[in-house]
Amino acid sequence: MKIIQIQIKVSSGINKTKHNLLNYFEDIEKENADLICLGEMFNTPYDIHKFNEYAEEEKGDIWNFLSKLAKQYHVYLSAGSICEKEGDKLFNTAYVFDRSGNQIAKHRKMHLFDIDIKGGQYFKESETLTAGNEITVFDTEFGKIGLCICYDFRFPELSRLMVLEGAKIILVPASFNTTTGPAHWSTMFKSQALNNQIFAIGTSPSRDLKADYKSYGHSLIVNPWGEVICELDEKPGIQIQEIDLNLVDEIREQLPLLKHRREDVYKLSKR
Amino acid sequence: MKIIQIQIKVSSGINKTKHNLLNYFEDIEKENADLICLGEMFNTPYDIHKFNEYAEEEKGDIWNFLSKLAKQYHVYLSAGSICEKEGDKLFNTAYVFDRSGNQIAKHRKMHLFDIDIKGGQYFKESETLTAGNEITVFDTEFGKIGLCICYDFRFPELSRLMVLEGAKIILVPASFNTTTGPAHWSTMFKSQALNNQIFAIGTSPSRDLKADYKSYGHSLIVNPWGEVICELDEKPGIQIQEIDLNLVDEIREQLPLLKHRREDVYKLSKR
Repeated sequence: MKIIQIQIKVSSGINKTKHNLLNYFEDIEKENADLICLGEMFNTPYDIHKFNEYAEEEKGDIWNFLSKLAKQYHVYLSAGSICEKEGDKLFNTAYVFDRSGNQIAKHRKMHLFDIDIKGGQYFKESETLTAGNEITVFDTEFGKIGLCICYDFRFPELSRLMVLEGAKIILVPASFNTTTGPAHWSTMFKSQALNNQIFAIGTSPSRDLKADYKSYGHSLIVNPWGEVICELDEKPGIQIQEIDLNLVDEIREQLPLLKHRREDVYKLSKR
Repeated sequence: MKIIQIQIKVSSGINKTKHNLLNYFEDIEKENADLICLGEMFNTPYDIHKFNEYAEEEKGDIWNFLSKLAKQYHVYLSAGSICEKEGDKLFNTAYVFDRSGNQIAKHRKMHLFDIDIKGGQYFKESETLTAGNEITVFDTEFGKIGLCICYDFRFPELSRLMVLEGAKIILVPASFNTTTGPAHWSTMFKSQALNNQIFAIGTSPSRDLKADYKSYGHSLIVNPWGEVICELDEKPGIQIQEIDLNLVDEIREQLPLLKHRREDVYKLSKR
């Protein structure tokens, strides 16, 4: 399974973003990727006061553009996340399209990121966004894949539930910042990959030092043994990586963590 | 809160172990530690065929020796784990004594370590040991502390439940091996410390290259921000570290992960 992560620079104005994406897709066409991944809010300056300006309803303009890209290039597209409008509510929403351009998954960020670090980051998504309530796992020709957004992935309950539903990969469009990124980004991905014996794929926008929100970048893939197998730096760029999903089964056979869970002692379930 | 971890060399014969411990305690008396920690099966060669030979019932000889040490040195003693016999069953059991030598916690390893890595480690605890069924959190003058053993700590459900019961520290007598140690030891401790915003304290025996089971060593403490604040190498030795439990509250206030759990979407509970 060949994966390409596009660590795009977030632009002001949707036309610039579309133009960038078209260029990337043309450049990587020859690679015949199976899955292309974009970052969290890749088309939206990460400023809660601008979310509304960039928000679109499902099946809006950017949604259609992304669906057509998936179809034209015959690729699964984990289309990062964008700001979704429904009625008077805004969501941070990740769509996934299949090779025919059909939407096969939709995840609304379920844990909103509110942080207030002394001398560091202050950011409150909950001032503007509404949280989703659904755990998202979808089926593909490669098996089941889980989907969540950034801060969602800090919660072991969520990744475990996706894995118990069969996910062997978890896709995480994300955008850590320059406080939490160096401190926690790779540990979080290694943590959930290792504890669940999955491939964890984190895709971020690149860092823009002029932006209010300075993204950490560092799009990466961690294998089910907890190893970072590829990682970008903070600059715009692409990363091409083949993964072998048999590794999930092999590692789960050698070190059967999921089988060893003590379901007679504790219980984790959806409400 | 001043913590001393003793990374002891596992010896054949209990008298040698007692002698070593007495020397360590004499040496560190001047430090006025609050808590002294030992490693998993610190008194027992880690060979499932030898467990029975070293096993003792609760309040047996080694238990009394440890209780007296705690009282004599007026210190909390997380007495690693030892092989406990009850009827015809054997358990991998961790005791904790308070400053008066009273047993204030007892944890029987709940997840037994069965591993079979191609070209690497083969070890099946379940061939000899019986698993415990209790989640262990106890109270001290410093607040609540959780206790589990080695492989138990790979399961996010268990550490989360200890934290939901109030634990701000989790003590983990452990003995990773030279396959899983370099691969997973520090990631596991960082993972649970970061996800739960606790101090995670892992204490191992030292590595004995002549032993069947070659322990990884590397006793360490990870703070609630996910940073390794001290770590030994593989050799016998002690490690002295002060920790400030206010950091747990500060970090949970700045980045309120536990408050942000979506208990309306998922539910984790004891059976």
